This record gives sequence, C-alpha cells and structure tokens, in this order.
Amino acid sequence: MTLFESIHNPEALKKLPADQLPVLAREIRDFLVDSCSQTGGHLGPSLGVVELSIALHRVFDSPKDPILFDTGHQAYAHKVLTGRHDFSDLKSEGGLSGYPSRAESEHDFIENSHASTSLSYADGMAKANEVQGRTDPTVVAVIGDGALTGGMAWEALNNIAEKRNRRLVIVVNDNGRSYSPTMGGLADHLSSLRMTPGYEQALDLAKNTLNRTPVVGQPLYEALHGLKKGLKDTIQPQMMFEDLGLKYLGPIDGHDEPAVEKALRRARDFGGPVIVHVITQKGKGYAPAENHDEDQFHAPGPFDIDTGEAKPGPKVEKWTSVFADTMVELGREREDIVGITAAMLHPTGLNKFADAYPDRVFDVGIAEQHAATAATGMAMNGLHPVVAVYATFLNRCFDQVLMDAALHRQGVTFCLDRAGVTGNDGASHNGMWDMSILQVVPGLRLAAPRDAVRMRALLREAVAVEDAPTVVRYPKGAVAEELPEIGKVGRMDLLRRATDGGHGKDLLIVGVGTMAQVACEVADRMADQGIGVTVIDPRWVKPLDEALVAEAAEHSVVAVVEDNGRTGAVGDAVARLLRDHEVDVPVRTFGIEQEFLDHAKRDRILQQQGLTPQELSRKLTETVSRYGERGGRHPELADEKA
Amino acid sequence: MTLFESIHNPEALKKLPADQLPVLAREIRDFLVDSCSQTGGHLGPSLGVVELSIALHRVFDSPKDPILFDTGHQAYAHKVLTGRHDFSDLKSEGGLSGYPSRAESEHDFIENSHASTSLSYADGMAKANEVQGRTDPTVVAVIGDGALTGGMAWEALNNIAEKRNRRLVIVVNDNGRSYSPTMGGLADHLSSLRMTPGYEQALDLAKNTLNRTPVVGQPLYEALHGLKKGLKDTIQPQMMFEDLGLKYLGPIDGHDEPAVEKALRRARDFGGPVIVHVITQKGKGYAPAENHDEDQFHAPGPFDIDTGEAKPGPKVEKWTSVFADTMVELGREREDIVGITAAMLHPTGLNKFADAYPDRVFDVGIAEQHAATAATGMAMNGLHPVVAVYATFLNRCFDQVLMDAALHRQGVTFCLDRAGVTGNDGASHNGMWDMSILQVVPGLRLAAPRDAVRMRALLREAVAVEDAPTVVRYPKGAVAEELPEIGKVGRMDLLRRATDGGHGKDLLIVGVGTMAQVACEVADRMADQGIGVTVIDPRWVKPLDEALVAEAAEHSVVAVVEDNGRTGAVGDAVARLLRDHEVDVPVRTFGIEQEFLDHAKRDRILQQQGLTPQELSRKLTETVSRYGERGGRHPELADEKA
Repeated sequence: MTLFESIHNPEALKKLPADQLPVLAREIRDFLVDSCSQTGGHLGPSLGVVELSIALHRVFDSPKDPILFDTGHQAYAHKVLTGRHDFSDLKSEGGLSGYPSRAESEHDFIENSHASTSLSYADGMAKANEVQGRTDPTVVAVIGDGALTGGMAWEALNNIAEKRNRRLVIVVNDNGRSYSPTMGGLADHLSSLRMTPGYEQALDLAKNTLNRTPVVGQPLYEALHGLKKGLKDTIQPQMMFEDLGLKYLGPIDGHDEPAVEKALRRARDFGGPVIVHVITQKGKGYAPAENHDEDQFHAPGPFDIDTGEAKPGPKVEKWTSVFADTMVELGREREDIVGITAAMLHPTGLNKFADAYPDRVFDVGIAEQHAATAATGMAMNGLHPVVAVYATFLNRCFDQVLMDAALHRQGVTFCLDRAGVTGNDGASHNGMWDMSILQVVPGLRLAAPRDAVRMRALLREAVAVEDAPTVVRYPKGAVAEELPEIGKVGRMDLLRRATDGGHGKDLLIVGVGTMAQVACEVADRMADQGIGVTVIDPRWVKPLDEALVAEAAEHSVVAVVEDNGRTGAVGDAVARLLRDHEVDVPVRTFGIEQEFLDHAKRDRILQQQGLTPQELSRKLTETVSRYGERGGRHPELADEKA
Repeated sequence: MTLFESIHNPEALKKLPADQLPVLAREIRDFLVDSCSQTGGHLGPSLGVVELSIALHRVFDSPKDPILFDTGHQAYAHKVLTGRHDFSDLKSEGGLSGYPSRAESEHDFIENSHASTSLSYADGMAKANEVQGRTDPTVVAVIGDGALTGGMAWEALNNIAEKRNRRLVIVVNDNGRSYSPTMGGLADHLSSLRMTPGYEQALDLAKNTLNRTPVVGQPLYEALHGLKKGLKDTIQPQMMFEDLGLKYLGPIDGHDEPAVEKALRRARDFGGPVIVHVITQKGKGYAPAENHDEDQFHAPGPFDIDTGEAKPGPKVEKWTSVFADTMVELGREREDIVGITAAMLHPTGLNKFADAYPDRVFDVGIAEQHAATAATGMAMNGLHPVVAVYATFLNRCFDQVLMDAALHRQGVTFCLDRAGVTGNDGASHNGMWDMSILQVVPGLRLAAPRDAVRMRALLREAVAVEDAPTVVRYPKGAVAEELPEIGKVGRMDLLRRATDGGHGKDLLIVGVGTMAQVACEVADRMADQGIGVTVIDPRWVKPLDEALVAEAAEHSVVAVVEDNGRTGAVGDAVARLLRDHEVDVPVRTFGIEQEFLDHAKRDRILQQQGLTPQELSRKLTETVSRYGERGGRHPELADEKA
C-alpha cells in the first residue's frame, strides 16, 4: 500500500512523520496527473497547492477550523487528503464534483465556483464565532492573486481588517500567473520584498515563476494588462496589506512544506486576522504543465501523460471560434469596436482580436462589474465595446448592465459564452440564468443564434445597435449543424410550416437558439403522426417580434423550447406577449427546471430535463390532442370557428 | 441681479473675478437651503461641495472634460453652475431630477444613483480617449469616502493605476462622516497626514469634522463599525493610494476654493491619473445641517429654514418602523438573529436593533456583495442573519444571493425596504426589479406583506426558515390600512369571495402586497356591476401555493396585480403555474411597464401605469365580458359546462 492510500482523513495526515511528507506530495501529484489524464480537470491549480494543502490540514483542525477555497479550482489535493481517492468519474454523473461539495465531505464549505467570495464567507464565519462566544476555531481562506482583483475581495478585506481579535487566516496563493504589463515594474516590487523576512528563498521562485510569462511582443503586453492585477499588490505585501491594518507573514515558498507549516502555525496562534503570502507554481511537478505557455494546464481535457498532448477528439468548429473570427472581421471594418474581458482573454476567444488589435482590448481583472460599467463609459465616449464573458458570470454585473449600460442607453454588446447547460462543472457554471434576468432590463436586446451562420449575422446586428445594450448568447462546445430557414415570419426565421404537408395548424413551436434544431426534430416526428407543426426561430428573443402574435393566433397550441431556466425566460415572455394581445391560445413552455443541477454531461442533463425530441413530442402530442380541434383562443377567431 | 443669477454656464463662471467667488458660494448655499426647505432634497451633501463644484468648473472644460459625480447626491451646486436655476419642482413631475440627468444638461453623464460606479465610467472614458487618440480631454470623477468602500471602486482603481498616461483626475470628497470604531485609531492616521503637504489647514478641519460624530456609547461603536470604512484609507492617503501606483495630491481643505483650484490645476496638468484628496464638511454653511447629529441633512423633507425642523406632516406608522420594531422583538426571542446593513443602518431602521443588541449588528460599508456572502458564512456557522437593504440595491448582490445563499441552502433573510415604486428619486431608486429576478433563484422564498399585521407575521415566518434564503419586501412610506382576511385558500389569504354576493365566479384577482388593497377596491367596484370577483393575497409569492390552481380553474378569468415590473414577476409566475397544471384560463397581468420611470410622485406613477382601481376595473370588466360566459379553460371543466 502506498502512503497515499493510507491517508483517509486529516488525523492520519497529522500523525505522519515529517520526513514522509515529500513522498506523500509526490504520490498525490502522480495520482492527480494520472487521474486527470483520463478525465480532464483543474490539474494545474491543484498541482500548485499540494504542499500547501498538506500543511493546512496538519496545522488546522478541519472541519472545526473551516478551510475555504476561493473559486475551488485548487481543491483536488484537499479532496484526496480528506478521504476522496476515487477520481475515476470526476465531474461525471455519480462521480466527484470538480469543486468542493458539501454533499461529498464535511470538510467542504463553498461550492460556488465564482471568484473572490471566500474572504466574505470567512468574515461571516469569524463574526459568527465571535457572536456565539467561540474563541477556539480559526477560519481559513485560500485565495489566489487573481481573485484578489475582484471587488468583493476588497470589500471583505476592509471588513476583516477592522477588528483585530477574530481568528482568521487568509492564505494568498500567489502563483504569479499574469499577462500584466505592470510587470514592467517588477524590479521595484521585488526590491520592496527584500525588506521582508523569508524573501531569499521566495525571491528566486518568484523570479522564475514570473519570468516565464510568455512574451508575445510589447504591443500585446500593453493591451493585455491585468489578467491578474492583484499581482502587483501581493508582491509588495508589506505595504498594501499592512496599510489595511492586517498582520502579514511572508512571502513563503509554497513548495517548502515545513516553511508553510511554520508560517501557518504562527498565523493560527496570532489570534487575529493574518495574511500568509505563499508563492506557488501552477502545474508544479508535472513538466508539461510547468512548461505550458498559455495556462499551465489550468483545466485540460484528457491528455497523454508522457507528452501532455491532448487526446485526439473530433475536429469541430466551436462557438467560441465563431465569435473569435467574427470579432476579428468586425474589428477590421470598424475602428470603434473594442474588446473587454474579465481575466478570460483566451477562454472567451478574445485573444484573436487582441492579436489583431492589441490597442483595442482591455483585460480588467476578475472584475465583471467594472467591465460592464467601464464599457458603458467607453460607449458614452465614442466606442462600441464588446464584453466577452461566460454567461454565468454575467450575473455578477446585473446591476451594472441594468443601471449603467441600459439606463444610459449605451451601445455595449455582451457576448455570453457557455450559455445554457454546460454540465460537468456543476451548478455554478451552467449559463441558465441570463435569458431570465435580462428580460427585465429596459431596452436591452438579446439574441440566441441557432448555428454559426446566425451567430455571425446576429453579432453584426448587435454591434450595429448604438442606443441600447445588446446581448448574444451561445453555448459551450461545437457549433450546431447549419439549419437554413424556409421563409420569414416578420423578422423571424420560419423553419417548418404546418401547412406545407397539408396538415392543420395544430402547433407552433418557438425554438430558441440551439433548441431550434430540437424543435424541428419534434415537428418532423409529430408531422409523421399527422400533426401540423410550425417552427419559428425568433433570432432576437428580446424584444420579441410582434408578428409572433398573429402567427400564434392561427395555431391551436403554442410551445416554447429553450436552453435556459424556465422561470421568467423566453417561454414566459411569449406567453405574456400573447396575453397582452388578448390571444389566449394555450402555451406550453419547456426549459430547465429552476433548480441547481448536479454535475453531469450536457446530453444527460437535457435528457433528465425532458428536452429531447422524443419527450417533447410525446408531451406536445398529448396537449395537441386535447386542444387541437378547439382552435386558437383569440375570441374573434374562436367565434369564427364556432 | 445677484451674482448667482448671472451664471448660466461654466464659461461665465470662469470669467468671474476670484474675489467674487465667496459671494457666489454664499448665494448658492442660500439658494439651495431655501429651495430644499420647500421641496426637500439631498441638501447636506450638496452644501459640502459648493466650493469644490466652483473650482471644478473653473479648472476643467465641461463637457469636453466630463465631470462624473458618484452616486449623484452632491450635484446640486453643479446643476446651478450649469444653468439650472429653477429648483421649485425638484424631484417632482416636470421638475429637475434629484440626480444628474442627461436629458437636463450636456454637463451631466451618470444618472445612476447606485454608489461606487464613477471610477469605472471614468476609466472607460479615459480608455476611449486613448483609443481614439484624443490627448486633450481630462476625465474627472468625484467620489465620496463612503463610496470608496464599494468593491467596484477598488476594481476601477486597480485598472486606473495600471497605465500612467491617461488623463484622469479622481477627486475624493472626504466628508468624514463615519460611525466607525476605527476612529479609535484616528490619532495614528492623522499623524501620518503630517507628512503630507497642505496638512496644516486640513488637519483642523478634519479634526472638527470627525470629532462631531455622535458618541452613543462604546458598545454601539463596536457594533456600528464601518459605516464608511473608506475613511481609514483616505486619511492615510500617501500610503494606500500611492501603493496602488496613483499620484496623490492632498489633503486639501475643500472649502478653501483657491486651494482646491490650485490642486485641480496641478492634477489636470500632470497628464496621468491623479487622486486629489479634498476634505469637506457635509451640510457646510447651514447651521442646522452642520449641527445635525444623525446625518447632517443628508436628504431632508421640507423644513423650516430658521430652525431646520421638519415641517409637520401627518403622523403615520411607516413600513420601516414595523420592520425595526419586529426586529427588536425577534432579537429578544432568538439570540442567533443578527442584523447586517450596507451603510444604511438608520435608513433601513436597523438602528433600533443595534441599540438593543449592539454586538449583533454589522455594518459592512457600501458593499452589498459582501453583505450577502458574509451573511451566508454566518448562517453556515450557526446564526440567522437579516440583511436590511433597499430593494433597488439588492440587484448589486444578485449573484451572491443566487450562488452563495441559495446554492448552499442557507437561512439568510433579506428585508427589502423601498420595494415597488418609490417615485421621486427617479429610475434608479424604484424597487421594481426584485420580484422578477428573485423568481429564478432556486429554493428562495419571497413574501410581500399587504399591511403591518402581515409584515410582522411574514418576517417571523421568514426567519423560521433555515434551509433557504428568504425575502420580505415592502414599500416606502406609511403602512397600508389593515386589511383582514375573510378566509383561507390553502395557506393564502382570501380577501373577497365572488360567491358571497351571489354572483358567479367571473374573476379571480391575485393581489400582491399593498396591491391587495387595490384588488379589493377593484372587486368592490365590479361587484356593484354584478360581476363576481374573488381576491386572494398569496402572502408568499414564491413559491406560489398550489391551491391557487384549483381556485383559478373555477373562475373565468384570472388577474394578477403587483407593484413591480411586469416582466418575469408574480403575474408571469401565476400564469406559468396554471399552464403547468394545464389550466388554460385566460390570465391578465398588471404591474409596472418594463421601462425606466421618470421621477414623479408615487401616486402619479401608479396612475400613469394604470394601477388604479378605476383603470383596472375598466380593463377587467372588458375582459370578463369577453370571457365571462365561457368558463374556465381547464379542458375537463370546459367540457362539463359545454
């Protein structure tokens, strides 16, 4: 039995002799590399904190001392040390979650993968200890230098700093990943480090880590400032953190386990809030990750262990690429178009635009709120900004979309990648909220392309709007097969026509985005049973084209199918539009039940949600059979038939 | 003609000899005090920045150099100097907006009254100047010390600091208003000020300003820490701001106009981002405001000029008081209940709880995101936090309510004051979003009390829920008259019963919150015309009680009336519930049209929106006459009747 297999909880780890810890660390790394090579996962971040995770669990008494991982990308070693040794179905149905999970372990607290929240949880937990007179537990938060750029982290630091007797340890996991041009001032920052105990060993590591940031040419540097802007603060910690009134320890070499343990013990025994600044290397211990230029294996898919090469998959065009290429075209045609990202230049595909127009892209750090409002300022001042963001993270700047971009009627385009069910990353990554909450934003226009042709067209239409924010939302993964329209209804695309086959107008399906394809499959199945089904893709789902009203009134039943939470989304909007026009045809709305989804593959979730052609046509056939002969519910139309 | 009347634009101001500026400042103050004594308004903040506003418009060239006011409470002098001299209908229909307004003046840019956004606008505008090769304009942002506690401000500072050649001046309007216990360290902070040029005149002012903070006893101090936590940072500026890499000028006595002008000229000519730290006194120049203990006339209603006493109005119980008193009761009964506010202790009524339980209230600064997530941490650790916040500001922590409180199924109660139409403060203050966006949050429960009795009961029910976030929302102003139920439908309150008068079941009205009263008036009017109307108050509008389904199926038409944007709110939820149960009775939904509302009195807006008993009964009578004889749309029921 390996050492690794004998550790099922932190108690066992605490009993391990110190000289065996390097062996354990190596075994954990081997295990993680081996597992992730098969399943994919957040390997790079987790490899960087193996020693840190060991030290945390030796020094603190989890779960009495809660250890809170910000964003949760770095929790695999923690999972292993708290007894979770079966990574074979990582992120698949029934397998381990890719993030901490309260259902999995009493040692896990935060499931939310949105960044910069851990210090707020920690502040709340420490205050709760105080109110309840518990003086023993220490609350521990582990936060990356990138997450420190989020405004929430500053709000929390401001609160944590105000009272000196709450037992709270903030571990800044500074892995030095940065595309920031502020690195030009690195020498200055490092010189201030020399005043800090422990700088010697950290200095070399920091230099090594930071100098590996790829040099893509000075103009790009200028443009790509601030992927993780927290860096410049964490590197001169004795100033920034102590100005805030926080006790500071560091910098510590995060791969020197005894040094980390020592610092954590000092921090724990201090009795008040302390920052422990730990310098780590993302991807540590696995050469292909350490040497990876772009993201040090942040979250690879399955790969070959020896080479680190991704396992060959089907060669497909992805939605992100369609966005990326279209942006480059648009940038060539219009000099006023600029790109904005919140620390996701590559994942959103905005890097192609940055390569082409380095002076016209802005990475604002993990700061969606600032992204939306700075974009509004740009629009007020003559530019047309395109904010590229994952759909789930748009929630973080809802107020800014509403009260900044929309209230001031500015032409800002938000492109929401990973909209709809994403699946494997669990509840907090699914982009199932945007088509609901954005409905309430006055003036905002929202498009959901069904294929690459529509994606290019709708993005063009979006950036042409100068007096309101626009949104284009599209899913993760491969673009859907092209689905041509057979006609127009108003400005909407007609995809199937009930009368074409000689059937009656039994059912109108509004297919939103990629669900248009599913809607057509439903129509074809139902047509085979002699039911007349019309399918429309509205393209712009907000505002809805009023031509939909007359079309709906001619059908016996209307259905809406969308890849979003059902509540308040396009289905509700269609039903409201018809009601407001006194067209009371029965409506049925299909989407994701309004609940947090367990991690599983996208197809599996759509199946669970009944969003398959089989299940939809079964249900709709039943509804049509109930209503098919009774005609539309518009009173005049009904009277005519009667 | 007074000097004041001769100034219609910044050009005229620039031509004024310097020795006349004190006269102008005095005239502006007299004018503002006189106007606000009649109309009410944000007097205190505006009195504090009269000299600053004069200096800004003499140094900069607005609108070429945009001057951006954060939150907009302090813009009255700016309005006067840019030609707006008629304050007689301030905040009323047709009169001046209480905030900057793009429709009013080319000198106004930001209408959003939500805090901490100005630096993001400024960063965007400065970047836009850079992209377009404009090197001349300077972007100016004026932000209070309180607004600096918001995370967005930090996100923006982080971005602004990264590039040194964008022309951007940040004026920190430090009016020293703070309840913070960090003031215990004030001597330390002030000592560091002595290293700064210009400290001498600022020092006395700062001491005078800061020492006036009311002493309510040390325990309260301990509890009320951090109403404006930015203070401790702005008071040792040479550390915090310069650590961020920003050029710093100050502190400057904000009432010494020549000194402010001089600093602003230096800042303007620097050619890169500069912070100008100006110390001002809120309420300056009007003794009743200067000496006001609680908020220095932050936003009084009409008052007597000589005494500053509020003009006598009707003595009424307000929703805020019902909340305040109930919280004190609940705090006595349950030690685990704690209160959280984002810098709004008095406005939300949480001050009574703070007086009673000083160790159980937390003011986190203008930091709604932190408030929601810290509350979640507290709930995880054994407390039941009640977050008291204005409804419009809940939008700022939507992601935290969803991904922190709800995803982790924690018992956190959010109490939303100023829900629905607030009116006079304009588009960004109306609380018309919460009942829509919160619909999408899985597990969350939302209550809308119709009167004080229901408010007390629902708040009790809310804090009894420990496995999900709960929300209680209630309007601004006087509580509605008590409206007793006449029975129950499931767990909902029955207020009128169609059959009581012997009429048929023509119409079911779901009256939400205070709209229940309106619904009853509609019912009574329609009953007089022989139409049978049932009225239900669901109390909990999320989740809806399924007893509503059978009740709806018995009526010919269902209507929902609510004081919220119509899109995605309770009306849509009722319609969806019925559809999902295959009850296709016609539904009509009434609420606020989904648009930004101009400022006007609440009653006037409700009238414009058709939310009066007259207009609603007119419309509904028409609908009922169309559908009344055709019965419910549940197929089986319809068949029965046929």
